[in-house]
Amino acid sequence: MIRIGIYGYGNLGRGVECAIKQNADMELVGVFTRRDPSTVKTVTGASVYHVDDALSMTDKIDVMIICGGSATDLPVQTPALVKHFNVIDSFDTHAKIPEHFANVDAAAKESGKIGIISCGWDPGMFSINRLYAMSVLPDGESYTFWGKGVSQGHSDAIRRIDGVADARQYTIPVETALEAVRSGKNPSLTTREKHTRECFVVAKEGADKARIENEIKTMPNYFADYDTTVHFISQEELNRDHSGIPHGGFVIRSGKTGKDLENNHIIEYSLKLDSNPEFTASVIVAYARAAYKLSANGDKGCKTVFDIAPAMLSPLSGEEIRKNLL
Amino acid sequence: MIRIGIYGYGNLGRGVECAIKQNADMELVGVFTRRDPSTVKTVTGASVYHVDDALSMTDKIDVMIICGGSATDLPVQTPALVKHFNVIDSFDTHAKIPEHFANVDAAAKESGKIGIISCGWDPGMFSINRLYAMSVLPDGESYTFWGKGVSQGHSDAIRRIDGVADARQYTIPVETALEAVRSGKNPSLTTREKHTRECFVVAKEGADKARIENEIKTMPNYFADYDTTVHFISQEELNRDHSGIPHGGFVIRSGKTGKDLENNHIIEYSLKLDSNPEFTASVIVAYARAAYKLSANGDKGCKTVFDIAPAMLSPLSGEEIRKNLL
Repeated sequence: MIRIGIYGYGNLGRGVECAIKQNADMELVGVFTRRDPSTVKTVTGASVYHVDDALSMTDKIDVMIICGGSATDLPVQTPALVKHFNVIDSFDTHAKIPEHFANVDAAAKESGKIGIISCGWDPGMFSINRLYAMSVLPDGESYTFWGKGVSQGHSDAIRRIDGVADARQYTIPVETALEAVRSGKNPSLTTREKHTRECFVVAKEGADKARIENEIKTMPNYFADYDTTVHFISQEELNRDHSGIPHGGFVIRSGKTGKDLENNHIIEYSLKLDSNPEFTASVIVAYARAAYKLSANGDKGCKTVFDIAPAMLSPLSGEEIRKNLL
Repeated sequence: MIRIGIYGYGNLGRGVECAIKQNADMELVGVFTRRDPSTVKTVTGASVYHVDDALSMTDKIDVMIICGGSATDLPVQTPALVKHFNVIDSFDTHAKIPEHFANVDAAAKESGKIGIISCGWDPGMFSINRLYAMSVLPDGESYTFWGKGVSQGHSDAIRRIDGVADARQYTIPVETALEAVRSGKNPSLTTREKHTRECFVVAKEGADKARIENEIKTMPNYFADYDTTVHFISQEELNRDHSGIPHGGFVIRSGKTGKDLENNHIIEYSLKLDSNPEFTASVIVAYARAAYKLSANGDKGCKTVFDIAPAMLSPLSGEEIRKNLL
């Protein structure tokens, strides 16, 4: 049995807790929280410990799955914890990945542990598919589309507007852009041409809806470069119709081969997810198995999904996967 | 530069020859043929040698790409050549993969070389996607659909019928079955429900078309279990409209997560290929780079796509792929 710890207990941590139940070769030792453990109720009845107790349990945990946020938690937690545990995180602040990798790699090489960073679906499964497709079709163009799905960051940005009680924002890929890519035309697409944004907003009593809508649609970085639709609805409607956290998207590469590059090929990978955090957690748990195997093989240092052979993710033996899946 | 040899020169060998031109870190040393080299004209002007000369060129070739057939060539050639070269093949006789793996592994471990077997898109990229998806979503069902594309084996089977001058057979996935899978219903699908077969047949002068059509539709293994359509056309029409070798298909996994498995997720990987042999060749060439890197790292033995980390396929450095693709 691979013994797992969960460090940080929000949506992602709960997803990891459930995913471990689906993998017969894993057991959850416990959840580590900054809160008072007596106040935390877990989904499956897992034990809860205070984060301060983690370092006394290094011999009870094979892989610590760090479920903190990328902004301030992971840059500190992952390098610190890899000094004591094999760890895995979902760090997704793209511009800071090189720095995070270097920090985790230095700490992991010193401790002799494995640290897998930036695991999930993007970064994660989408990244792998970009790499495979680009390696197989060097003459081509890659495209990533996200959605339809809830963007937490954009929803939060709307909630910060004066007069907004609650909000949910969906990122939606533009179907005609998807079709143009799939046709092999290798189109150049602007931000506006790739995605639209749809917002469901609960206004506070007496708030000026026209002003709120205008503030949303003109917000730099978040909405100004997109065609944005705003719907005002009640809190009840928001709770009833928009409480899920679906997401997904498409990685498409269109590339050419042949003596005169006369033949075109389309490689497409897509995800349609009812629950973004639960799917992310499922990817992380499969890579936790890889962290365990890599460590058992004597490997150490920081890894990403690019560095890990597919067989490492599976509970099956090499013989079984060759016989049943090749 | 990675120095490549091509052993066997048919459609696949020509595809490999063209693909090498698309990869700036590779050079083609030459093509090895069983025919008289003076009678073989290559697509890009590559040198042609007789297969008997291969063993005198072991110091000039880093990876030998073996482009023979799975039925009789590869079971002999791959274990024999891996005694002298890093090799890669596209062995696709599924039931015999364990035996082929064992033979290549024993020879490769003795010689200290790398032998990658069963590389291409199925087996190959489709296999990887089955493994990743199953590892991430253990509670679910996987489906593979092929087409629309030309099946060489089925076309050959039609050509063997008395009175048939030429034929081309397309395997076509059933759209309603694809939609049922994508809906998350996890349907049980019979052979007939997954694919249809469409045949374009050139009958010889005076042949009994009704008998030919009946023989096709009732042919065991090849057609009897499918809804098959037969069109009689002229040789000119066949040459004009059906000379390409397109193929493709879909690997879809539908799986559930959550406390009570209440959330569904769909992972879909698809290929739409203008040229089956050229795309297969492109995959093989990317894995030839991996064979070279693995060997340079001191690794040896038989590998499949399952055993090879994605980064191994890329000409880019770890830093570059983390910065640009993660």
